[in-house]
Amino acid sequence: MTETGSFAAVGQPLAQMRATAPLVHNITNFVAMNVMANVQLAVGASPAMLHALPEVAEFAALCGALTVNIGTADADWAEGMVQAARMMHRLNRPWVLDPVGIGATQFRKDLCARLLDLRPTVIRANASEILALAGLGGQAHGVDARDTVAAAEVAAAQLAARTGGVVAVSGPVDYVTDGSRAFRIGNGHALMPQVTALGCSLNGVIGAFLVGQKPLEATVAALAYYGLAGEIAAREAKGPGSFAVAFLDALANLTPEALSAGAKVRAA
Amino acid sequence: MTETGSFAAVGQPLAQMRATAPLVHNITNFVAMNVMANVQLAVGASPAMLHALPEVAEFAALCGALTVNIGTADADWAEGMVQAARMMHRLNRPWVLDPVGIGATQFRKDLCARLLDLRPTVIRANASEILALAGLGGQAHGVDARDTVAAAEVAAAQLAARTGGVVAVSGPVDYVTDGSRAFRIGNGHALMPQVTALGCSLNGVIGAFLVGQKPLEATVAALAYYGLAGEIAAREAKGPGSFAVAFLDALANLTPEALSAGAKVRAA
Amino acid sequence: MTETGSFAAVGQPLAQMRATAPLVHNITNFVAMNVMANVQLAVGASPAMLHALPEVAEFAALCGALTVNIGTADADWAEGMVQAARMMHRLNRPWVLDPVGIGATQFRKDLCARLLDLRPTVIRANASEILALAGLGGQAHGVDARDTVAAAEVAAAQLAARTGGVVAVSGPVDYVTDGSRAFRIGNGHALMPQVTALGCSLNGVIGAFLVGQKPLEATVAALAYYGLAGEIAAREAKGPGSFAVAFLDALANLTPEALSAGAKVRAA
Repeated sequence: MTETGSFAAVGQPLAQMRATAPLVHNITNFVAMNVMANVQLAVGASPAMLHALPEVAEFAALCGALTVNIGTADADWAEGMVQAARMMHRLNRPWVLDPVGIGATQFRKDLCARLLDLRPTVIRANASEILALAGLGGQAHGVDARDTVAAAEVAAAQLAARTGGVVAVSGPVDYVTDGSRAFRIGNGHALMPQVTALGCSLNGVIGAFLVGQKPLEATVAALAYYGLAGEIAAREAKGPGSFAVAFLDALANLTPEALSAGAKVRAA
Repeated sequence: MTETGSFAAVGQPLAQMRATAPLVHNITNFVAMNVMANVQLAVGASPAMLHALPEVAEFAALCGALTVNIGTADADWAEGMVQAARMMHRLNRPWVLDPVGIGATQFRKDLCARLLDLRPTVIRANASEILALAGLGGQAHGVDARDTVAAAEVAAAQLAARTGGVVAVSGPVDYVTDGSRAFRIGNGHALMPQVTALGCSLNGVIGAFLVGQKPLEATVAALAYYGLAGEIAAREAKGPGSFAVAFLDALANLTPEALSAGAKVRAA
Repeated sequence: MTETGSFAAVGQPLAQMRATAPLVHNITNFVAMNVMANVQLAVGASPAMLHALPEVAEFAALCGALTVNIGTADADWAEGMVQAARMMHRLNRPWVLDPVGIGATQFRKDLCARLLDLRPTVIRANASEILALAGLGGQAHGVDARDTVAAAEVAAAQLAARTGGVVAVSGPVDYVTDGSRAFRIGNGHALMPQVTALGCSLNGVIGAFLVGQKPLEATVAALAYYGLAGEIAAREAKGPGSFAVAFLDALANLTPEALSAGAKVRAA
């Protein structure tokens, strides 16, 4: 890990997460569900996916963290997301928001406005989504980013100040801030956005790292870990198919020591 | 196959299933759907996934078997599960119940109580879920088992007596009983629970084996087959990603003869 | 490419699609969603999956093409499919219909009747589904075809005349017609139907090729490309698991030049 002053070794949050194998409740989109569960199992967490109104808040209360991704939400799912997030907010437990494609429709904007009020511990999104979420007029091209990470840094800090949480902007170099401190994470590989739902699934890793750990440090460590696994997987990949397979192997096999050695984190 | 007296070669039910390629109707969770369909295709069955109330019972009547998994059910899906299971019960066709995470919420307990009344041909679950289903107070940790297989044997026999069907308890060594006879299956590998939905997908294999075959023998054979494929896949796996890929290959390539030779089945 | 007179090199539509990376809106079944998104990313398109009534038409209007697959539709999803297709019809943008399992239930027949009225640019299905869609009495065995491609050629031409669009019949040799011209595509591999949702995901490739291109030529090129990638993937596959991985790699790595050289297209 590049020295940052305020961080212990980046590998430490990974070691702690694995030691507790936290149960994480995920309400995510249909495209991501299977990948996200496999990613969480590979990193050493315990995933659970469910969303039904008769049980969603009751179940959230059993979990160490919650992740919410609005990618394929409909009216009922949206209500379930709000109920689960409200429960975590009330219990003072961490939860992660991924405002997928927020710029595309009014339904998404309205849903995210409700979710923002429940103060997500971490918001993770691409630059366009962060800009749209902050009300600064980012325009979504489906679920891809058209804005640069740099263009979203001010918006990220504003969002963090508004929620009291952490905001992570995904891109070639990620930017993570809690409104006062900020870090850049340079790990990752160009094949990662060529596999669907890897961004979404990262939320599940962040959620697992958040349980019992400091949000800013946990988020930075999760991003470095994820990106480094991508770098390792790319070494043997022949395309996006074999990359996705090698990526799960790399997540499972990466040690805290290797993470501390390979993380590219610097203060922003 | 280790000699059990009442069993022909374990490979025989696999050969018979492949000869008929039965159409199996699956109402399963969102995480498992794709894996389960691929597993059923790999073993030689014909999968179909659908759940909508306007068609679910009509479609079930076209199928040789049904599998029901409550993992991501909501109110409408629950109703569809009941309608489909009622149709199979009425037609005297086999169906499989997987009471995922039953211990976690009241919604799940209520749904499983309704489904139990429709007398599933096979119930397959981990030890904690079997205990919860039998009303003996198992406590679920998400979807993972916290109780040992041995602790669930009495509950499994009670459930089998209640439904008149077979109960399979998954674990390092599986336990399968119809209330009078019982068997243990020692095949499997530690990487299997590291891939999401492999347990769920096993229900689809059991469902396919049940069509036109004896429930206890078919279930034992399906479990041995599945576990042996896991052992084979593990030989070349470098982690959970490559294991999942090799597992599908192994299911497709495993012959009835190799299954009979490699099955670890003994009377309990 | 085998010479067909009316076609430029089959590789040309692939090159043009990749140059624009069109945003394609997909309303597909739960089994296919992840695979389809990965397939679209691998070919070079930009996928988006969503279906909720409060946003589905609004979002469709942002997209270059739409694909609709009724595999796991329920009443709400059906309404969303109709709304999105109506929007594309109104905007004169291309959309693709996959009438999965139409022969199995009345719900599917009713839904497809509504969708047919919105004149899909391309209908792609197996022979049994094309026969059922044309009202000629095909009988579905789940989602598999029991009729030969040849048996569905007349029905395909009738459907094309009715919709004013293209009809593609999938099988060992595909048949594609716009009612006046017809082509056969001989690319493909027997492992392709052993992986779930590869047929469904092909719709996403067709949809991407349709944006700004001629429907008949685009569809033929998409089918040849897809089948050729299957041939390439099969060379290193050891079963359906490794085939699926290699298939995504092949889609990503196949060049327009290699497609033109390897396509097996002839006028029918």
